[in-house]
Amino acid sequence: MDTVRTIADLRDRVAAWRTGGHRVGLVPTMGGLHEGHLSLVRLARERADRVVATLFVNPGQFAPNEDFDAYPRDEAADKSMFADAGAGLLFAPEIAEIYPDGHTTKVEVQGLSQILEGEFRPHFFIGVATVVSKLLIQAMADVAVFGEKDYQQLQVITRMARDLDIPTEIVGAPTVREADGLAMSSRNQYLSEAERAQAPALHATITGIAAAVAEGGDPDALCREGAAKLEAAGFRQVDYVTVRDAETLAPLEDAGRPGRVLAAAWLGKARLIDNVAV
Amino acid sequence: MDTVRTIADLRDRVAAWRTGGHRVGLVPTMGGLHEGHLSLVRLARERADRVVATLFVNPGQFAPNEDFDAYPRDEAADKSMFADAGAGLLFAPEIAEIYPDGHTTKVEVQGLSQILEGEFRPHFFIGVATVVSKLLIQAMADVAVFGEKDYQQLQVITRMARDLDIPTEIVGAPTVREADGLAMSSRNQYLSEAERAQAPALHATITGIAAAVAEGGDPDALCREGAAKLEAAGFRQVDYVTVRDAETLAPLEDAGRPGRVLAAAWLGKARLIDNVAV
Repeated sequence: MDTVRTIADLRDRVAAWRTGGHRVGLVPTMGGLHEGHLSLVRLARERADRVVATLFVNPGQFAPNEDFDAYPRDEAADKSMFADAGAGLLFAPEIAEIYPDGHTTKVEVQGLSQILEGEFRPHFFIGVATVVSKLLIQAMADVAVFGEKDYQQLQVITRMARDLDIPTEIVGAPTVREADGLAMSSRNQYLSEAERAQAPALHATITGIAAAVAEGGDPDALCREGAAKLEAAGFRQVDYVTVRDAETLAPLEDAGRPGRVLAAAWLGKARLIDNVAV
Repeated sequence: MDTVRTIADLRDRVAAWRTGGHRVGLVPTMGGLHEGHLSLVRLARERADRVVATLFVNPGQFAPNEDFDAYPRDEAADKSMFADAGAGLLFAPEIAEIYPDGHTTKVEVQGLSQILEGEFRPHFFIGVATVVSKLLIQAMADVAVFGEKDYQQLQVITRMARDLDIPTEIVGAPTVREADGLAMSSRNQYLSEAERAQAPALHATITGIAAAVAEGGDPDALCREGAAKLEAAGFRQVDYVTVRDAETLAPLEDAGRPGRVLAAAWLGKARLIDNVAV
């Protein structure tokens, strides 16, 4: 599997695949690969003949106090894993290729970007929508795959691609979990051994809420109880535990609509997020 | 010349042209056509084999107090003029085709959008950048032509297309003027006969400033005098008269860089803008 570092080279490779009659898939990542990322590549391979995996730790989605410098980086290991999972090309650009001098354009999905994660990380989804719109326009793939683990991000990207008429189908892939339920995440490696043992409480709690809501329980009361359970389990701060409309992420008013339980909480140095369907 | 009203139909037509080996040009307009628009179509025809003209009065770039409802609309007349100028297809979508329910994504060229016109029309360039990014992504033309008459808009669009990696070359076309120097504009029809006689003072004033700056005159002093001349000539309010860097639109610090004189002023109900090279 080759690595390309420029948009021009990426486009040449994609054009050659298209000339060959191939459907093209795209899997944008920030590296720090785990089984969850590889499941995205495999799903993309099911939907397309050739898959571009991208590796770009996007400074635009980190606040100054966040972990941009500490974010795990190991291109050689990531490349090997991408290749084993079936990717046909690695696009690993330098920062200046994505954000050349004088780059000031931002893409924002208003509304959807301001709630939940957006309340705690105000610039996060502007950074995500901007870089993903660029990657989609650069690759012009038939299909792009993103994980449901970052559920709000998936909704933001889906809306952005639709709103900007980007002709790439956005597909969500189910969250891959450890045996004890913890959602796989590049940031799990920030957990100490003791915290790692406490972490599965997040998935257990939201799964319990989803089951209780499905049986007619009161979402607000269940979420309050859930937050208390997380604190009792060792989480030092609960940013939110909430039940939302699965598409708009607005508070779930209509019990007939698909719902989603979403939560974010801090365990030691790691901010963990997770979500499950009601 | 056919008219299409959906993005899908637009893409089908462009794809058919591409299959035929043709280069494709795009000329986005809000209608209210005059000779200036037709010069854009002719320039696009020089740069491409087939030209899509678009006709869409974009609500996203009008503030609530602006002239969205009054903006001149005559699709049949515009279509006939486009065809005569050499366009091969008219794309005239309904508002719901461009902004479907739940459309909340905005594109903003930060910095460049906040100065000059952006100070007086804070949402204008967000509306322009959003709709033009969509039209560019919809058509995926080789080249798109915009008038230098809206000089800051041309810079915003050029930067936006570069920043989002949209693979369409953005080309500026020289301003077309009446015999007395007044820049052609759809909004000139808001002028009374008396105001129309006063209007050429705008071009005369900025042309004088450009000549004096080229000869070493002090830009600030010249612009102050220019604003006073416009008020003496009957303009009821001068929003700005300024000399800027031709690319960044920052205040012109380095006399070696290309400069641009830009002005905006109100004459009766019409807000006129114009610009010339130093």
